[in-house]
Amino acid sequence: MITSFKALSDSVANAGKRKILVAANATDEHTLLSIVRAVKAGFVEAFLVGNAAEIEPVEGLKSEFIHIIDVADKTAAAEKAVAMVRGGEADILMKGLMNTDVLLKAVLNKERGILQAGNVLSHVGVLEIPKYHKLLFFTDAAVIPSPTLEQRTAQIKYAVRAAKSFGIAQPKIALLHASEKPSPKIQYTQDYLAILEMHRSGEFGDVVIDAPLDMSLSIDPESVEIKGVATPVNGDADILVFPNIESANCFYKAMTHFAEAKMAGILQGTDKPVILMSRSETAESKFYSIAMACL
Amino acid sequence: MITSFKALSDSVANAGKRKILVAANATDEHTLLSIVRAVKAGFVEAFLVGNAAEIEPVEGLKSEFIHIIDVADKTAAAEKAVAMVRGGEADILMKGLMNTDVLLKAVLNKERGILQAGNVLSHVGVLEIPKYHKLLFFTDAAVIPSPTLEQRTAQIKYAVRAAKSFGIAQPKIALLHASEKPSPKIQYTQDYLAILEMHRSGEFGDVVIDAPLDMSLSIDPESVEIKGVATPVNGDADILVFPNIESANCFYKAMTHFAEAKMAGILQGTDKPVILMSRSETAESKFYSIAMACL
Repeated sequence: MITSFKALSDSVANAGKRKILVAANATDEHTLLSIVRAVKAGFVEAFLVGNAAEIEPVEGLKSEFIHIIDVADKTAAAEKAVAMVRGGEADILMKGLMNTDVLLKAVLNKERGILQAGNVLSHVGVLEIPKYHKLLFFTDAAVIPSPTLEQRTAQIKYAVRAAKSFGIAQPKIALLHASEKPSPKIQYTQDYLAILEMHRSGEFGDVVIDAPLDMSLSIDPESVEIKGVATPVNGDADILVFPNIESANCFYKAMTHFAEAKMAGILQGTDKPVILMSRSETAESKFYSIAMACL
Repeated sequence: MITSFKALSDSVANAGKRKILVAANATDEHTLLSIVRAVKAGFVEAFLVGNAAEIEPVEGLKSEFIHIIDVADKTAAAEKAVAMVRGGEADILMKGLMNTDVLLKAVLNKERGILQAGNVLSHVGVLEIPKYHKLLFFTDAAVIPSPTLEQRTAQIKYAVRAAKSFGIAQPKIALLHASEKPSPKIQYTQDYLAILEMHRSGEFGDVVIDAPLDMSLSIDPESVEIKGVATPVNGDADILVFPNIESANCFYKAMTHFAEAKMAGILQGTDKPVILMSRSETAESKFYSIAMACL
C-alpha cells in the first residue's frame, strides 16, 4: 500500500517502465522541472508540444527522453497534444502554460477529443498532510461546480479506482456536509442518502461509505468518540467527497498553505489521465501528479 | 490591534470589568473549564442555568463569581438563560450540553427570544493559524446554509464589526469562490458582484473588498504574484466570506485538526452575543469565544 508521495514515486520508478507524457505548452519553470524530475526518476518520456522559443532554460531539459515539438499557437498546441493521446502516441496529457479552457476545449471536442460520449469528467486529488496518518483523496476541486447524483456517483467510482491503484483494499469514504444530519432542504444531503442505498446494493464494490459526515467525524477519531456518533468511517477516511467545487477547492488550498500539505491530482473520465494544475502549484505537486498518472 | 488570542484575552482581562455570562446547561468539562478560566482571568461572572446534579466536578467551580441555578429540564434551562439576557441580567449567552436546536428555539422565539424581527442571525468565527501572520475572521460556518444577497450583506457587516472590535482599522475582505472568475451560472458569484457595487457606494464603510477570489489569492501574496491577478486584498485577507455553510465548516474544522489552528466564534444579529460551540470543541476555543464576546 502506498501511504506517502515518496512511496508513490518510488513505486512507479521501480516499475521500470517509461510512460509517454505529452505536455501542452510546457514552457514555465514549475511544469518543466516536474517533467525533468519524472524523466530522471525513469518513469516518463516526454513530448513538449508548444512554443519552443518560450521554454524556460531549466537544467536537465537536454535528454534523450525529452522531445520538443514546436507549435507556437497555444490552441494548436493543445489540439496536437490531445491528438497524440487519442492516436495512442501518448499515455498522459499535461497542461503547461495556457488557460485551462483552451486545453479542456481540445479534450472535450466531440470528434477529436479524448472524452467518450456519456462519460463524466471529474477531478481526483490526493493530499499528503503531515498531521494525517495516510494519504487523503478528495473530489472534486476543479471541474464540476455542483454535482448531480449521477455525477457524484461517477466521482465516487473514480476516487475509489484511484485509491485502489494506491493499494488501498477497502477505501473509507466520507460524503461531507456541515454536520452529520441530512436536511430535506439541502439537495446534496438527499443525494447522499440515495448513494448509501446504492452502496447497500453493491454499486461501489468493496468500500466503506458513510454520509453525511462533517470534517471532524471524517478524519478525527476523537471527535467521533466525543460526539458519540456511530459511523463506519470512524474518523479514518481515505476519500473525502465534497458537496461542491467551492468547498473542495477552499479546503485543499488551505491545506497546502496552512498545513504544509502536498498535493497531487488528475482528471478522470477521459481515455487517459490528464494533469491539469494551476500555474501557482509547485513543481513538486506537478511531479507527484505525473507519478499518480503513471500508476 | 489584537493579532493573537493571547492578546485578546489579555485585552479583556485588562479592561477590568466582569461581563455577566449565562450558560444553558453547562455541565460538561470543556464548557465548565472555559468558564472557570474566564472567571479567573477576571472578565466574567457566570450563571450556570441547568441540571446541577450533572455538573462535572471541575476545579475552580467554587467561586464568588460562579452561581448555579438548578433547572433540570434542558428546554426550560435554555428558556431561563435567554430570559436572563432579554431581561438585562446577562450580557452573553453560552450553550452548554444541549442540542443546538433547543437553544436556538429559545433564542428565536418571537415573544421571549433575543433576535429582533428582521435581523439576520449569523456566525462569525476567528482562527489563529500558526502559519498566518494575523487572526483570520470567517463567516458563516454554523447558521445560514446558502446565504441570500441580503443575508450575505448582513454577514459582511457583522464580520467587519467583529474585526473592528479587534482594532483592525480597515479590514480586507475576500469573498471566496473556486477561482477569481465570476460565473453567470453560479448565483453567489453574481451576488458578489452586487456586493462590490454596494461597496463602491459606501455600504460597508472603510474596508477593502474583492470578489470572487480563490483561497490562494486571499491569503497568499506569492500566489497573487504568480497568477498576476490585480487584487486589493493582495493575499492579506482579514475576513474570509465563504460561499456557503459547507465550505466554511469544512475549512475551519480542517484548520483546527490539520493546521494546529485555534478557533473562537460567536453568533451575531441577536441583542447580545451568543456562544454556540460544538460539544467537541476544546475548552480553549470556548474560552477564547467568551473573550471575543466580551470585547
